[in-house]
Amino acid sequence: MASHEDFERTRRLSREIAAPLSDADASLQPMPDASPAKWHLAHTSWFFETFVLRDFVPGYRCDPDFAFLFNSYYEGEGARHPRTRRGMISRPSLDAILTWRDSVDAAMLSALPDLPSAARTLVGLGLAHEGQHQELMLMDMLATFAENPLVPAVWPRSGEGGSNGEAPAPGSLRHPGGVVSIGAGPQGGFSFDAERPAHAILLQPFELADRPVSNGEWLRFIAAGGYEQPLLWLSDGWDWRRREDVEAPLYWRRSDEGEWQRFGLDGLRPIDAAAPVCHISYYEADAFARWAGARLPREGEWEAIATGREAAGDNLLDVAGPVAPRPGGGLFGDVWEWTMSAFLPYPGFMPDAGTVGEYNGKFMVSQMVLKGGSCATPRGHVFAHSRNFFYPHQRWQFAGLRLARDA
Amino acid sequence: MASHEDFERTRRLSREIAAPLSDADASLQPMPDASPAKWHLAHTSWFFETFVLRDFVPGYRCDPDFAFLFNSYYEGEGARHPRTRRGMISRPSLDAILTWRDSVDAAMLSALPDLPSAARTLVGLGLAHEGQHQELMLMDMLATFAENPLVPAVWPRSGEGGSNGEAPAPGSLRHPGGVVSIGAGPQGGFSFDAERPAHAILLQPFELADRPVSNGEWLRFIAAGGYEQPLLWLSDGWDWRRREDVEAPLYWRRSDEGEWQRFGLDGLRPIDAAAPVCHISYYEADAFARWAGARLPREGEWEAIATGREAAGDNLLDVAGPVAPRPGGGLFGDVWEWTMSAFLPYPGFMPDAGTVGEYNGKFMVSQMVLKGGSCATPRGHVFAHSRNFFYPHQRWQFAGLRLARDA
Amino acid sequence: MASHEDFERTRRLSREIAAPLSDADASLQPMPDASPAKWHLAHTSWFFETFVLRDFVPGYRCDPDFAFLFNSYYEGEGARHPRTRRGMISRPSLDAILTWRDSVDAAMLSALPDLPSAARTLVGLGLAHEGQHQELMLMDMLATFAENPLVPAVWPRSGEGGSNGEAPAPGSLRHPGGVVSIGAGPQGGFSFDAERPAHAILLQPFELADRPVSNGEWLRFIAAGGYEQPLLWLSDGWDWRRREDVEAPLYWRRSDEGEWQRFGLDGLRPIDAAAPVCHISYYEADAFARWAGARLPREGEWEAIATGREAAGDNLLDVAGPVAPRPGGGLFGDVWEWTMSAFLPYPGFMPDAGTVGEYNGKFMVSQMVLKGGSCATPRGHVFAHSRNFFYPHQRWQFAGLRLARDA
Amino acid sequence: MASHEDFERTRRLSREIAAPLSDADASLQPMPDASPAKWHLAHTSWFFETFVLRDFVPGYRCDPDFAFLFNSYYEGEGARHPRTRRGMISRPSLDAILTWRDSVDAAMLSALPDLPSAARTLVGLGLAHEGQHQELMLMDMLATFAENPLVPAVWPRSGEGGSNGEAPAPGSLRHPGGVVSIGAGPQGGFSFDAERPAHAILLQPFELADRPVSNGEWLRFIAAGGYEQPLLWLSDGWDWRRREDVEAPLYWRRSDEGEWQRFGLDGLRPIDAAAPVCHISYYEADAFARWAGARLPREGEWEAIATGREAAGDNLLDVAGPVAPRPGGGLFGDVWEWTMSAFLPYPGFMPDAGTVGEYNGKFMVSQMVLKGGSCATPRGHVFAHSRNFFYPHQRWQFAGLRLARDA
Repeated sequence: MASHEDFERTRRLSREIAAPLSDADASLQPMPDASPAKWHLAHTSWFFETFVLRDFVPGYRCDPDFAFLFNSYYEGEGARHPRTRRGMISRPSLDAILTWRDSVDAAMLSALPDLPSAARTLVGLGLAHEGQHQELMLMDMLATFAENPLVPAVWPRSGEGGSNGEAPAPGSLRHPGGVVSIGAGPQGGFSFDAERPAHAILLQPFELADRPVSNGEWLRFIAAGGYEQPLLWLSDGWDWRRREDVEAPLYWRRSDEGEWQRFGLDGLRPIDAAAPVCHISYYEADAFARWAGARLPREGEWEAIATGREAAGDNLLDVAGPVAPRPGGGLFGDVWEWTMSAFLPYPGFMPDAGTVGEYNGKFMVSQMVLKGGSCATPRGHVFAHSRNFFYPHQRWQFAGLRLARDA
Repeated sequence: MASHEDFERTRRLSREIAAPLSDADASLQPMPDASPAKWHLAHTSWFFETFVLRDFVPGYRCDPDFAFLFNSYYEGEGARHPRTRRGMISRPSLDAILTWRDSVDAAMLSALPDLPSAARTLVGLGLAHEGQHQELMLMDMLATFAENPLVPAVWPRSGEGGSNGEAPAPGSLRHPGGVVSIGAGPQGGFSFDAERPAHAILLQPFELADRPVSNGEWLRFIAAGGYEQPLLWLSDGWDWRRREDVEAPLYWRRSDEGEWQRFGLDGLRPIDAAAPVCHISYYEADAFARWAGARLPREGEWEAIATGREAAGDNLLDVAGPVAPRPGGGLFGDVWEWTMSAFLPYPGFMPDAGTVGEYNGKFMVSQMVLKGGSCATPRGHVFAHSRNFFYPHQRWQFAGLRLARDA
Repeated sequence: MASHEDFERTRRLSREIAAPLSDADASLQPMPDASPAKWHLAHTSWFFETFVLRDFVPGYRCDPDFAFLFNSYYEGEGARHPRTRRGMISRPSLDAILTWRDSVDAAMLSALPDLPSAARTLVGLGLAHEGQHQELMLMDMLATFAENPLVPAVWPRSGEGGSNGEAPAPGSLRHPGGVVSIGAGPQGGFSFDAERPAHAILLQPFELADRPVSNGEWLRFIAAGGYEQPLLWLSDGWDWRRREDVEAPLYWRRSDEGEWQRFGLDGLRPIDAAAPVCHISYYEADAFARWAGARLPREGEWEAIATGREAAGDNLLDVAGPVAPRPGGGLFGDVWEWTMSAFLPYPGFMPDAGTVGEYNGKFMVSQMVLKGGSCATPRGHVFAHSRNFFYPHQRWQFAGLRLARDA
Repeated sequence: MASHEDFERTRRLSREIAAPLSDADASLQPMPDASPAKWHLAHTSWFFETFVLRDFVPGYRCDPDFAFLFNSYYEGEGARHPRTRRGMISRPSLDAILTWRDSVDAAMLSALPDLPSAARTLVGLGLAHEGQHQELMLMDMLATFAENPLVPAVWPRSGEGGSNGEAPAPGSLRHPGGVVSIGAGPQGGFSFDAERPAHAILLQPFELADRPVSNGEWLRFIAAGGYEQPLLWLSDGWDWRRREDVEAPLYWRRSDEGEWQRFGLDGLRPIDAAAPVCHISYYEADAFARWAGARLPREGEWEAIATGREAAGDNLLDVAGPVAPRPGGGLFGDVWEWTMSAFLPYPGFMPDAGTVGEYNGKFMVSQMVLKGGSCATPRGHVFAHSRNFFYPHQRWQFAGLRLARDA
């Protein structure tokens, strides 16, 4: 159950992430998939106001304008502002939203001690929800600043560029196959409904690499013409690659001297060969794996290996700051890793009760599962059972890949 | 191994399906997903010419124009005519294509006795391929004539309309769960690479209805407002429904008196309440199942039930003629049935060798598996292990659904 | 007033133009702007059936299906088939349409002697209308066959290619300016409502070239980088050029050896340097004129020069056959010539009475006037007062340009 | 020639217009046609920096980033930021742009006394340019705030709503026709190149209404079903109306009680029946005129009537404040008035020399001329010879109409 301290820590981190942003920075929407930072700060507050304060605190009055503007996609909560126009809302200002945010926090902190159990569960969900939006906020900030030809650095860093070396050759984690249990049970940390119930599956023997694919390996894929060989690609992937004229991960650019660089929240910087490759689509991940004579892991395989291990210590988001995968993390937690599993209901899946049941279940088609958390995932918010999901073409999330092979 | 007789029977059926078509009928392309009938007649011949005659019959000369026009999607076979412009080819005419077809057949029949084993395997694949294109040809003919406001009937039928009754209440087929084997092994009938290898999976207990959902049941879903309640729908499905203004299965229309009718290759006719509902998207199937308090089957569940049973006797395509699902078939074979499984590689999947390896593997993303065959599937071309696949929004295939439940 | 003979000659020419077409050839629609040849044959018959037979011949019964399918754009005539789907109508067949056409002709010829004056005026309009559709049919046939990678020739020609020489240097036709009368008066040949009334305008002194710009001159424009210099282009034109990746007139292609060729109804042939350039947009015409230090003529200037002269003898369409501008015609009649005048109502413009008043008036925005007739315009259908009109980006009409200068 | 005082007054007005805007307000771009307010403040400074300071003040150093970001459409000035992404630039901030603006102003004021004549002409052009951008800034601010469901008022007004009455019946201004001179000569106020040279045209007799069409008259057009009758509309206009589902002027909304209201920079307010209708497209203006048994004026007719009269005293923009047409202005100056003349070069048109020659000439296709100035046009910036131009579908400018008739 979420404590006072959990609540305050989570709510504070959102503000810290937004701290370097001007009102204008926080108001832009670079594409329909992304939202203004201001919107994230408001939507996460709307979540508590709607599902906790409105429903469990007698006499609490919600702001109907804010409810209209900051409901994301909950049909059960009625009419809402169209997602594609979120970048048209200069008013309320960032300050006005932060003020509202404070008032929601005050009401929440005052209400917390007396909330019934159902409400406390929703508080826990709200904090996990806010953790996801912290990552989304970082993704969307990056997408926003990447639109600016002046390549502004949100968190400038001192001169050190990438590490100079390559990542060490990857080792192999073998699994004998057999019946394993995946999914979240009643014990263990927080879980979303889509991660439940725990259930048995049957695996064939396989092996996983002990680290994600690195930028250095990706540079070799580019140099080998990986982006030009249709036989390496899924049909949809090849169409996408040609239509969008893709020739490198998102946010990679060639300098005038022809060197690849990458734009991040710390500005435009050289490629760090040792760090995990990031901001790739499922199509690219799949093509790389085929080129490498391997394949992507299935979600159950990934989870069978990861269960009992901790997400990496170094890389997961702790304090806001330059967010980019770094070399040498733990087993996972540097980049979300595409799996070859579609995001579908587990056997026995039951959506959470009430409107929050729209949280995950209605997205269970056409998306792929990613595992492992990233350098933009708040520390403590990722587990072996965590399931993230994106469409195959999406790249603005901090996503990379790990190779798998049949044993 | 394909016999002389198999070859002739399959090739003849394609021509019989096209027999009622004029040159113009056979040249139209109603949408990018569909192809002109003429194109199917040519493409299936190109398949034999390219993968058998060219590669295994010394001295055989292919027509490069035809190779350019009638290669569907094989990157390994070089440049080809864009799919979206297949309806722009009035020349070569239907007659010219049939003449070419005859010459390919003659060459094939002459070559058959002496073909090496690898080539004979490709002949078998070519016949299975042609069986799929026979169904596609029927789908595309229906899509073409459905565009014509005069609702022409390709195969007019005498006056009898739909049966007057409702389908009997469905029974239940229970399965205790446990480890089962699915997929095609070395024994049994023909299989595509995507259906191999046979492998063990672990199922939870479940039950399936013993017949697909009927038109009568679908009419009740419509009457209950199923198309207007967002909470029944997947998020993508609801967006699709609103964007496309969908309110009934494809090819259903309201008469001036407000009665639902359906257009088929036998013209515009009343809805037969007892027949399986057909021409629905995955989104609609999923919404219906949710409304009914059930879910769609997983492909492994479906196969576990179907294994050891035959596809239905009455409904599978035998001779060309009015194609529409009829009530009272066997366990399956009336309509392709959407499953809740994504079309992904089986553990150990290996694409066929050579260019034909593009047949299935490169489509393994964003599509859902359908099982069971339809009234437009040639008799003998469907097995418990058969996997068909379409995108969730597609409806021009003969697709319905069967309900499943956790036990 | 239209005679029996006029009627028969015009109706016959339409059939002759369509004579080389198969049913499939006549059913395709290559783009929304174009229509199937079959549709033109039907629509021109619908015009007589609707505006003459239905309204003036007691007891005549129209076919409501044909009225729905073959009404082009007359809101006053009720619901109609969407223009963009005209290529989806394989039935009625070409033969069925020709049979219907014959029946309309028979009814018309029988009715002609007794028609009242208002009806006879509509017959004249119907024949002028059919002349326009003969040209449209040729334009649309060309657009259709240009889609076919096999470059079929509708009217094959013997081996002679283009003339070998260049056109002689153009001479200059000077005009002193002053008040002139343009537009069609009650005398003279047929006129459309948009060409009336005759009215006085005031011109500044100017001069026109005595022939259109030639292919040879256009090749020099290409060689000089005319398609790459934004300062030569209108802003909309430059956007269009880049978006569509235009680098030559429509139907021009480079051979494998890098030579420009042009596709026509006589197949793929070398460029004839002496012939007028054809199939260019207004944007291209305007850019060429600027490059040449000249401008396009105004419609009044063009008409002031052309009045009292005949359209060219050699080039206007007489019998159906290879249609392409040839060198050495008269003053005009080789290619429609873009003017810098927008298609707007003349002072005192009154649309024709009744539904046929939709013929021209409702198109009087955003289009530019072209003058002079082309090699695809039926002989006798073009006058100094004729006004044709297209959108600036359109190129499938037989359009070129003539240079003008302020004196 | 522009004085010190002219320069300071014009530059100050731009800042006053932007004064109520936050950084975020000033950064949004509601549609590709519009630009952020910040962009206008920067672009107008870029104009002086580029065409005056860079070219005439030795040693002046331009900021290349600003030149890239704030060049609007001058091909002659090289690469520039894409128009459609102007709303993605949160940095430089509004403050940074105002600081830069101040530095440009200081440099300009210091340079003004010594500028050569060619430069002084460019200063005059730059001030006229800035006047146009002041109006554009108001248009774009309105378009921006209209996107906000909270309907913020930039300049709140006290309670008085619209006047309660209707406008008085319009009178008629007759003109006998004949040769008149239009266009700007060497005398008179400032003129843009597109307004030159003065030249003679020949008019037929006509009459114009002595005031624009009012909101009250427009409400009757709506009530009479004017938006539902295709025969009133141009073909392009009808397609536009249906595609965009237009049923009233832009920024009009129905209240929950069914009353029409209009959104303006003073918020959401009742319709003032006596004020000129505003924010209509050419298509709407044309349809209204046809419904009223009249037509739109030609630009020459309008100018012949207006010459020698002053633009209206009350309505033209003087100080920034609630901008909406008010009843009872002078002959013109309330709303830009659509004419039925296309925006085309006058006889003898010569673009200004140098890159500023791209100012008007390259837009001379597919747009219609508007005359008269509006309540958002700075006082002193509109003349009888002024030519404004927009595409027929555009409505975000302050545009209405005046009726004309042949005499």
